[in-house]
Amino acid sequence: MAEKVYQCTVSAPVNIAVIKYWGKRDVGLNLPTNSSLSVTLSQDDLRTVTTASCSKSFEKDTLWLNGHVEDISTSKRLSVCVEELRSARQGLEKEDDSLDKISQLKLHVVSKNNFPTAAGLASSAAGYAAFTEAVARLYGLPWTPTQLSRIARQGSGSACRSLFGGYVAWEMGELHSGADSVAVQVEPVEHWPEMRVAIMVASAAKKGVSSTSGMQSTVASSTLFQKRVKNIVPERMQAMKQAIRKHDFETFAKLTMTDSNQFHACCLDTFPPIFYLNDTSRAIIRVVENINAAAGKTVAAYTFDAGPNAVVYFLEENSAYVLDTLYAVSRNAQGWEDSERNPTSVKIDDVASETVLSGVSRVILTKVGDGPRLLSSEESLINEDGTLKDA
Amino acid sequence: MAEKVYQCTVSAPVNIAVIKYWGKRDVGLNLPTNSSLSVTLSQDDLRTVTTASCSKSFEKDTLWLNGHVEDISTSKRLSVCVEELRSARQGLEKEDDSLDKISQLKLHVVSKNNFPTAAGLASSAAGYAAFTEAVARLYGLPWTPTQLSRIARQGSGSACRSLFGGYVAWEMGELHSGADSVAVQVEPVEHWPEMRVAIMVASAAKKGVSSTSGMQSTVASSTLFQKRVKNIVPERMQAMKQAIRKHDFETFAKLTMTDSNQFHACCLDTFPPIFYLNDTSRAIIRVVENINAAAGKTVAAYTFDAGPNAVVYFLEENSAYVLDTLYAVSRNAQGWEDSERNPTSVKIDDVASETVLSGVSRVILTKVGDGPRLLSSEESLINEDGTLKDA
Repeated sequence: MAEKVYQCTVSAPVNIAVIKYWGKRDVGLNLPTNSSLSVTLSQDDLRTVTTASCSKSFEKDTLWLNGHVEDISTSKRLSVCVEELRSARQGLEKEDDSLDKISQLKLHVVSKNNFPTAAGLASSAAGYAAFTEAVARLYGLPWTPTQLSRIARQGSGSACRSLFGGYVAWEMGELHSGADSVAVQVEPVEHWPEMRVAIMVASAAKKGVSSTSGMQSTVASSTLFQKRVKNIVPERMQAMKQAIRKHDFETFAKLTMTDSNQFHACCLDTFPPIFYLNDTSRAIIRVVENINAAAGKTVAAYTFDAGPNAVVYFLEENSAYVLDTLYAVSRNAQGWEDSERNPTSVKIDDVASETVLSGVSRVILTKVGDGPRLLSSEESLINEDGTLKDA
Repeated sequence: MAEKVYQCTVSAPVNIAVIKYWGKRDVGLNLPTNSSLSVTLSQDDLRTVTTASCSKSFEKDTLWLNGHVEDISTSKRLSVCVEELRSARQGLEKEDDSLDKISQLKLHVVSKNNFPTAAGLASSAAGYAAFTEAVARLYGLPWTPTQLSRIARQGSGSACRSLFGGYVAWEMGELHSGADSVAVQVEPVEHWPEMRVAIMVASAAKKGVSSTSGMQSTVASSTLFQKRVKNIVPERMQAMKQAIRKHDFETFAKLTMTDSNQFHACCLDTFPPIFYLNDTSRAIIRVVENINAAAGKTVAAYTFDAGPNAVVYFLEENSAYVLDTLYAVSRNAQGWEDSERNPTSVKIDDVASETVLSGVSRVILTKVGDGPRLLSSEESLINEDGTLKDA
């Protein structure tokens, strides 16, 4: 008789920080040097789907990530997450004899992104969030997203923010254990659902300097970085939360742009310097400045993570205005097919316009979205007998 | 009878800062937010030649700058310099009756650079230094270079450093009057004559954001900038002086690179952000990193002013090693004609190599040099009758 296969499938979203996470005070626990804040993006457009399963017939904890197989025990970060979740399930089983004894069964986890991995699109955030959520649900853990965020954080720092929808803060915490370094929801998606997002993909190549080594190099060598961590980010966190609560887009936008710039400034103040922005990135900044200048107010905000791709935030009411201009400078890129656009009235810098046109290969149009979703068994990546669906 | 024409001709050098001047605490007086330190470049390669003359026949104070005529009284910065020098001459004439009464005669000043103006090559520094030196000599003022530097500073801040050869500090001073914001020589050229310089011209176009408006924007909006000014530069000034005194190239180089990076980091932390480095600049940084990695020690240092052009410092003993690699990545540029180069043994990043090859149009090979020179009448830009030589 075939062994029973327990399984659960979830999806988790990408999040894009508007107050940036850069720098670890503890590399092992992924404890940050400063708090950060992000907007969760809609899973209708960008998501990681993960099925977690366990069975007596499985021989070792294994992860299939976008078709690439990995022994979970060889990844320290994955192992830490599995151990904590497994130990929690074990606790439940001890308390309640009616529960199936699945905590000691080996896990098979299958995970797929619907966007290019490591293109600077925070794939590890959605990935670790989905991993944590899927295993926690498989185990029936009665945990809040904030409790789960402590686990996901140990996989990938920014993953903790992908356990909530809407507007999410990662509070850095103070404890050595990291127990208070968790994500909390600032406001749900319903509070400010009008937030729109255009991602301008300037390069889908894998990035040069990994975030972890880059961060550590900044902490070690940038003489400006401590000023950011100690004095500037704490103030900005408060101001950003206020802006979100008040639906104050102009303040949200200004903080978003200045914080992105400061993160990249600290990268440049690192030795040897780290460069994520390229000429295309800088040209997109000029285009956003042109859009805001023509509008006479701030209607669009750029932000850049550890790569050259731009993420542009704007409100639904200014959607046509902003997108018509972004289309004008990136009309050859993939992703505009389903969008009806009109000629822009914004005067765009010629050099910037040409640079963006040749540098942006793809746009992704999306918006603020909700947190991890429980999916039906139809969307499972694993068959009932435990084999992989497309294996 | 023709009126007598008094005249004097000098040349003044370009200087390239290794601790950067960025930010004014008083815009009118050109008083800086921090001290800075530079290397004076040889006038055999880059210089401004200026003839100052005066005569009863002249009708107004006039400057011919690279063939472009300008009424001195309409330039506040030029007028300030002229007034102070003229007033000093007047003082001399009052004290000594035997002196010709030339202080009230109108000035004709002719000035020419042997390099493109406003290409980010500090043309205003050499220009105001030559202007000040020429008029001061015409007037026979018994002033030291430090005293003259106070005048030149009011024309263009960094000009004060071009009144000395060798290694020069501009001490920011404390007085509101600016009387103590002057240049002093750290060491003369003879102390460390082995310093070599390669300028890689990435663009000879006029720069986008002027230094003065860029600086003021940084002072007003960068939240990291005050940290640099108050805590970081004072330490670096001391360390740089020590490095120069000890002929410690590795420390000199590391400080030069980190200070250039930090200046550009503060530009990026400005809102809206200021970008002077482009993809070519960043590629040159990678090439210098490749050179140092292959050497197993720091033998070359990059620095960038308010533009994309790189200035690379190295010692004579490593000249062949450094130049062979710079040649390999910029062999199509003008300026290598008189230099015999061999294939490089340094492994260069492919992308960086291609980017530099297409981005660098000209190289200028030079070295540390002396201060302003008094030139013979043969080199005057003005005829004995007061007419312009090539007018």
